[in-house]
Amino acid sequence: MTTNLETRAADFRAYVKKMTSYNQALAVLHWDKATQAPRKGMDARSEIIGVLAGEQFKLATSKEMEAFLAELGEPSALEALDEITRHSVLECKKEFDRNKQIPAAKYQEFVVLTSQAETVWEEARANNDFSMFQPYLEKIVNFQLEFIEYWGHDGKNKYNTLLDLYEPGMTVDQLDPIFATLREKTVKLVKAIADSPNKPDTSFLHKNFPIAEQEAFSRYILEKIGYDFKAGRMDRSAHPFCTTFNPGDVRITTRYAENDFNSALFSCIHEAGHAMYEQNINPELLFTPLCDGTSMGIHESQSRFWENMIGRSLPFWNHFFADLQKAFPAQFAGVTAEDLYRAINSVTPSFIRTEADELTYNLHVMIRYEIEKGLINQTIQVADLPQIWNEKMKEYLGIEPPTDTLGVLQDVHWSGGSFGYFPTYSLGNVYAAEFAHVMKSELSGFEDLVANGDFAPIRAWLKENIHQYGKMKSPRELVQAITGEGTNATYLMDYLEKKYTDIYKL
Amino acid sequence: MTTNLETRAADFRAYVKKMTSYNQALAVLHWDKATQAPRKGMDARSEIIGVLAGEQFKLATSKEMEAFLAELGEPSALEALDEITRHSVLECKKEFDRNKQIPAAKYQEFVVLTSQAETVWEEARANNDFSMFQPYLEKIVNFQLEFIEYWGHDGKNKYNTLLDLYEPGMTVDQLDPIFATLREKTVKLVKAIADSPNKPDTSFLHKNFPIAEQEAFSRYILEKIGYDFKAGRMDRSAHPFCTTFNPGDVRITTRYAENDFNSALFSCIHEAGHAMYEQNINPELLFTPLCDGTSMGIHESQSRFWENMIGRSLPFWNHFFADLQKAFPAQFAGVTAEDLYRAINSVTPSFIRTEADELTYNLHVMIRYEIEKGLINQTIQVADLPQIWNEKMKEYLGIEPPTDTLGVLQDVHWSGGSFGYFPTYSLGNVYAAEFAHVMKSELSGFEDLVANGDFAPIRAWLKENIHQYGKMKSPRELVQAITGEGTNATYLMDYLEKKYTDIYKL
Repeated sequence: MTTNLETRAADFRAYVKKMTSYNQALAVLHWDKATQAPRKGMDARSEIIGVLAGEQFKLATSKEMEAFLAELGEPSALEALDEITRHSVLECKKEFDRNKQIPAAKYQEFVVLTSQAETVWEEARANNDFSMFQPYLEKIVNFQLEFIEYWGHDGKNKYNTLLDLYEPGMTVDQLDPIFATLREKTVKLVKAIADSPNKPDTSFLHKNFPIAEQEAFSRYILEKIGYDFKAGRMDRSAHPFCTTFNPGDVRITTRYAENDFNSALFSCIHEAGHAMYEQNINPELLFTPLCDGTSMGIHESQSRFWENMIGRSLPFWNHFFADLQKAFPAQFAGVTAEDLYRAINSVTPSFIRTEADELTYNLHVMIRYEIEKGLINQTIQVADLPQIWNEKMKEYLGIEPPTDTLGVLQDVHWSGGSFGYFPTYSLGNVYAAEFAHVMKSELSGFEDLVANGDFAPIRAWLKENIHQYGKMKSPRELVQAITGEGTNATYLMDYLEKKYTDIYKL
Repeated sequence: MTTNLETRAADFRAYVKKMTSYNQALAVLHWDKATQAPRKGMDARSEIIGVLAGEQFKLATSKEMEAFLAELGEPSALEALDEITRHSVLECKKEFDRNKQIPAAKYQEFVVLTSQAETVWEEARANNDFSMFQPYLEKIVNFQLEFIEYWGHDGKNKYNTLLDLYEPGMTVDQLDPIFATLREKTVKLVKAIADSPNKPDTSFLHKNFPIAEQEAFSRYILEKIGYDFKAGRMDRSAHPFCTTFNPGDVRITTRYAENDFNSALFSCIHEAGHAMYEQNINPELLFTPLCDGTSMGIHESQSRFWENMIGRSLPFWNHFFADLQKAFPAQFAGVTAEDLYRAINSVTPSFIRTEADELTYNLHVMIRYEIEKGLINQTIQVADLPQIWNEKMKEYLGIEPPTDTLGVLQDVHWSGGSFGYFPTYSLGNVYAAEFAHVMKSELSGFEDLVANGDFAPIRAWLKENIHQYGKMKSPRELVQAITGEGTNATYLMDYLEKKYTDIYKL
């Protein structure tokens, strides 16, 4: 490497450190706003978030960044750079190119629109009035279409451009057959479950669970599975989330329902799954754009793995059931570990995605996927969404929402302009099952590990194969390296069919 | 105002908004670090604080700022500006001039030195080893002397330049007679108290007070006196502090001692006094450099007023004693409101400033003031500090610290390079007594208000006369407008003499 290149690379790293410092600061400001900040300080907080986000955007799209990328992005320069700097350059270039395509005024207009749309959506949902939200959604869809023109597309499907934002490399061509298999088999399985006479008793999950005790038990479980509280915190917020400041400070939040044991604990395990990913990223990636999960789908695979494949498994509760009974003796009197296992895996078609069980969840995602594809390819109209939504609910889940509040208006995503995000939720499930399949073949006695509460080998496997890399590997490279194949829904369906055949004695 | 001036003024305000946004963000990052952040995230947090503080400093000292100040700082321009913009320009100019005098490399060297010195000081204090800290303190004093040369001085006393950093306009010429009166009368009073046979019983203050109940009671009292929890929070940290993000979000922290009722409650009231100042600044000053207390001394007058003149008064406890007994029935069984009043005002010469009672506190401050003056005027040497410290303790308080840990090594200030700060603690007491004197003449039945728990008129008076202005009035203007005179220690001594004559039946 020439001295000049070395100097430029060092300057670039310092520049990127500054840029990522803004991201970290913004994450703290957001977290504090969602968990701690008093009401009267909110407006000023939003303003300073706006100021700092603007500065961060300037850094990411500056002439200085352009010069770095032109110089360090040259094939010969890239080749000479160390691996971390090379990947950092490529990641910054991707962001830069994407941001530079859209005229600043156009983007500003979109930011204002989505900010308004989110407020309107909240009102529309509260009033069960889709017509309020419709004009905003139409404008947002039109922005997506314009953005796709700016960003360009592969000529096959315009929706691919949006998918790539959240799951780099993913396309409709790959997703359609995966989701088709998933849908067909899931619909069949849900039907068989509905017809089964062996329904689990879930009544004990809805006894009274004092919040302080739920919180203590959730903390206990998270410590046991290996979320590092010395590198994180658990607080409360309106909606659960995980946020990363740096790998030494990855925080999760949750919310509690006194009459629903299912609600907080599994959401905590879910968020801890996200958090353990970030806590275990190679510390050398700190202050680079690579210090993050590689895609939304891979991130979701970690949360779903811990929530469902570990937290909702029988070996897990064979291990923890005694602790649970100790924490809630009256609530779980006369209940066995297997009763609990069956209850927390009860399958019931329902209207709200975020409250859906492990099996029907994917059907909720598919409805959104199909609608998004249709909107972006202009084969369906925003005005028809309530009807389309309800028809698909009827077709896939066998139930029809009585209101749009319980239907097409339930999710925040579209009001914020997030199209292409929903499929990553199901991709997370698909990936999780693929990873678990390989993990089980590599870790002998996987079920015994869980049954013994010995999660260290499982965490070590995840760190070794997934977590450490951050964004150094693309999701496709990661999946290929672990499984030796591509995205394949067979493992998920095998897992689900086995699990529910057993629970419902099909 | 010309169109050009109007445009420049608007640009300046936008620029200053950005600059103050960094300050707000930094305050959040510091607060979170002190109260919430997990250990493993601390290093990265310190780094991003460094990055953002650097950016803020650049904004405050940029060519752009220089141009604004040159243009808007012209007498004719200043005159044409609205009041808030004019004061903002003057405030920025003061900061700019101060920052610009010192070469960047010199300042950087000082920052590194104080950062190291703080660590060394901690160790020296833990090991009772002044010689460890001595070379660092010598260098820090030399930096102060250099800085004074850069900043310039009034030819009367070099220490004035440092006083002005914390208490604009304050000088040794003003302080010396004030502190002389205070010292002489206080020493006499302390002696009379020591000779009094009527010592209060304080034993009940050291029973066991469970922390959760102390916290609940402290919150209750803060709500009653009018700290607005919708515009703030109360959390725990190693050392109590108050921090302002904006007037709608002013947070306080405290720490609890199970066996000392005195410790947390009065520190909470003290910090709430600071916080109520900031919560009541005119909201129009948000995002200007004026949205802050006008000086350390005036700030301290607010905390001391609430802590001592309200919180340690008999009418206050005549009102709240029933609530206190309800919160801690066993601990205060057989105790009367007057017993409590006398106990919390017990005077005992002690080694540690932060634990000193209301009366002897000022003597601790004076020792530091005299030493600082001597160091800066080079009439005393750092090497002699332990001896000088102990001699002064003996002279003023009648006791001699057995170790430097309990003596000259006790305070963090000097290791951080804060010289000129200590006197503002006693100035706070002086101002508080002056303000209280006027307030009592303007609010009829002041003692009845306190005895009825009716603090709204008191808060309204403070807001009207002090809080609303932020930095729009200098401390001198504020004191003059309220009292019609300058800084005068007579009111404080009259108050103290009356209070302790009564308590100790002198």
